[in-house]
Amino acid sequence: MSEPFCSSFRVYYEDTDAGGIVYHANYLKFCERVRSDFVREIVGFSQRDALKGAAQGTGHGFVMTKFNGKFIAPAQLEDLLTVSCIPYKVTPARIEIYQEVKNEAGKLLYAQRCTLAYIDFARNTPMAVPPEFTSSFKQYLAPEDMVYAC
Amino acid sequence: MSEPFCSSFRVYYEDTDAGGIVYHANYLKFCERVRSDFVREIVGFSQRDALKGAAQGTGHGFVMTKFNGKFIAPAQLEDLLTVSCIPYKVTPARIEIYQEVKNEAGKLLYAQRCTLAYIDFARNTPMAVPPEFTSSFKQYLAPEDMVYAC
Amino acid sequence: MSEPFCSSFRVYYEDTDAGGIVYHANYLKFCERVRSDFVREIVGFSQRDALKGAAQGTGHGFVMTKFNGKFIAPAQLEDLLTVSCIPYKVTPARIEIYQEVKNEAGKLLYAQRCTLAYIDFARNTPMAVPPEFTSSFKQYLAPEDMVYAC
Amino acid sequence: MSEPFCSSFRVYYEDTDAGGIVYHANYLKFCERVRSDFVREIVGFSQRDALKGAAQGTGHGFVMTKFNGKFIAPAQLEDLLTVSCIPYKVTPARIEIYQEVKNEAGKLLYAQRCTLAYIDFARNTPMAVPPEFTSSFKQYLAPEDMVYAC
Repeated sequence: MSEPFCSSFRVYYEDTDAGGIVYHANYLKFCERVRSDFVREIVGFSQRDALKGAAQGTGHGFVMTKFNGKFIAPAQLEDLLTVSCIPYKVTPARIEIYQEVKNEAGKLLYAQRCTLAYIDFARNTPMAVPPEFTSSFKQYLAPEDMVYAC
Repeated sequence: MSEPFCSSFRVYYEDTDAGGIVYHANYLKFCERVRSDFVREIVGFSQRDALKGAAQGTGHGFVMTKFNGKFIAPAQLEDLLTVSCIPYKVTPARIEIYQEVKNEAGKLLYAQRCTLAYIDFARNTPMAVPPEFTSSFKQYLAPEDMVYAC
Repeated sequence: MSEPFCSSFRVYYEDTDAGGIVYHANYLKFCERVRSDFVREIVGFSQRDALKGAAQGTGHGFVMTKFNGKFIAPAQLEDLLTVSCIPYKVTPARIEIYQEVKNEAGKLLYAQRCTLAYIDFARNTPMAVPPEFTSSFKQYLAPEDMVYAC
Repeated sequence: MSEPFCSSFRVYYEDTDAGGIVYHANYLKFCERVRSDFVREIVGFSQRDALKGAAQGTGHGFVMTKFNGKFIAPAQLEDLLTVSCIPYKVTPARIEIYQEVKNEAGKLLYAQRCTLAYIDFARNTPMAVPPEFTSSFKQYLAPEDMVYAC
């Protein structure tokens, strides 16, 4: 087990709404960025190349099948957010990930779980997650005593 | 019991991503639009005026506290989506809403549940949902035999 | 010459920012929606089908090459915006369009000009605009005495 | 004169559209991020605090009044973009900024000019740009022999 994989993002005007805080759907964007960073930096897999394969009927990749989120406190303009990517269940067919969004003071603002399936783009059918993903995700697996906020 | 409250939205380029389908977080945007339409058209409440009150420390309004979503099939560019707003639990302190996104053929693409609390903006504390909301939402309450997709 | 082609859009939370008004880049989204409506409703051309052709190396479509915009007054949450699509120059190789965003009271909030070229997706090179576009756009050509706000 | 002020941003799924490239309006978001970074890091001004003042009728800040952009080549998923913020005209009443978006190979993808005015939020009227902005921007002023792509 190791430290969770994280990326940090500044909150810009585009992320906020007229309520003066980050628009609720944008927490999902921040979470997706970290999963993409994980896949690119840790697994070494290019989603861009996979999409080209998709156009030729030969590609494959992850799609989200379900998720749930909990809003604990709002993020605001100029906050520097740190977002984690913590897989807690890795099976041959899918991966379940828990993610937290914290501000610079370490305060938890948002927590999310999501399930990702691996898809054969040509047939739009699920397929086995490739071993390089499974082994990379397992390095960052949630510890057994992990406390989930959602 | 009545027909569910619905709004329809076209899928434009801005809603899609390089995978050729609607970006997952944008389903939450479509769902938020319908809740705003409900509040404006059925309850007759102006969120815009409430925000002005917020700046002067006198406003109040809904915030999302948690939600979960399920992706059944992808929406694509030019699809005309119909999105429902079906409250299934209305208490003095909060409202729970179930929403479905369907395409023009009536196929279910996405389903979501969310919980909204009512907030005193000045103190950032929960308060009782005003009776005009409660009574409006109750007109559109889910039937007892409703089948939920998530 | 005829009335300009227009579509109307409600301003939702997603369109606003912490300044309490519509985020500047979102005016370009509203303008793009109307151009897509024009292409779908008036020309009868499916951008979705064109994209599928693109994947197989046989498609073609419009891309923006340049634009300029002017901000006159801000749009706010719940505003119902009416956005026009007024071609003022149609040549075999490209189309120049002028667009205005007005609120419900008819007040001009934003004006934009943009130039669109027609692209062969397979070769990423410009090609002649198909005659069905040219003739459709010509029906909505700006009158000679048109006053441009930008 | 010095090196231009720049920030770098990864292209994520949220930035792309079904055409497989970055959605045109999102270049404006990237450009806004860099201007916000400049104001926060170089000028040391908090836009977040300014907004709070706005609610109490005492704030002030920049708004965009006009802009023009040119699309040279498309950015794609996973590109690491470097975006500059180069003021080329600084007057007591407004600032004109030129910005370029380049990919990792240094290729120019997009160029933009915009004019920003300084606004008294309480009265919604223009006011003089504070000297701390003017002097900060002047440190990064475009060289006289600068070549503009738009």
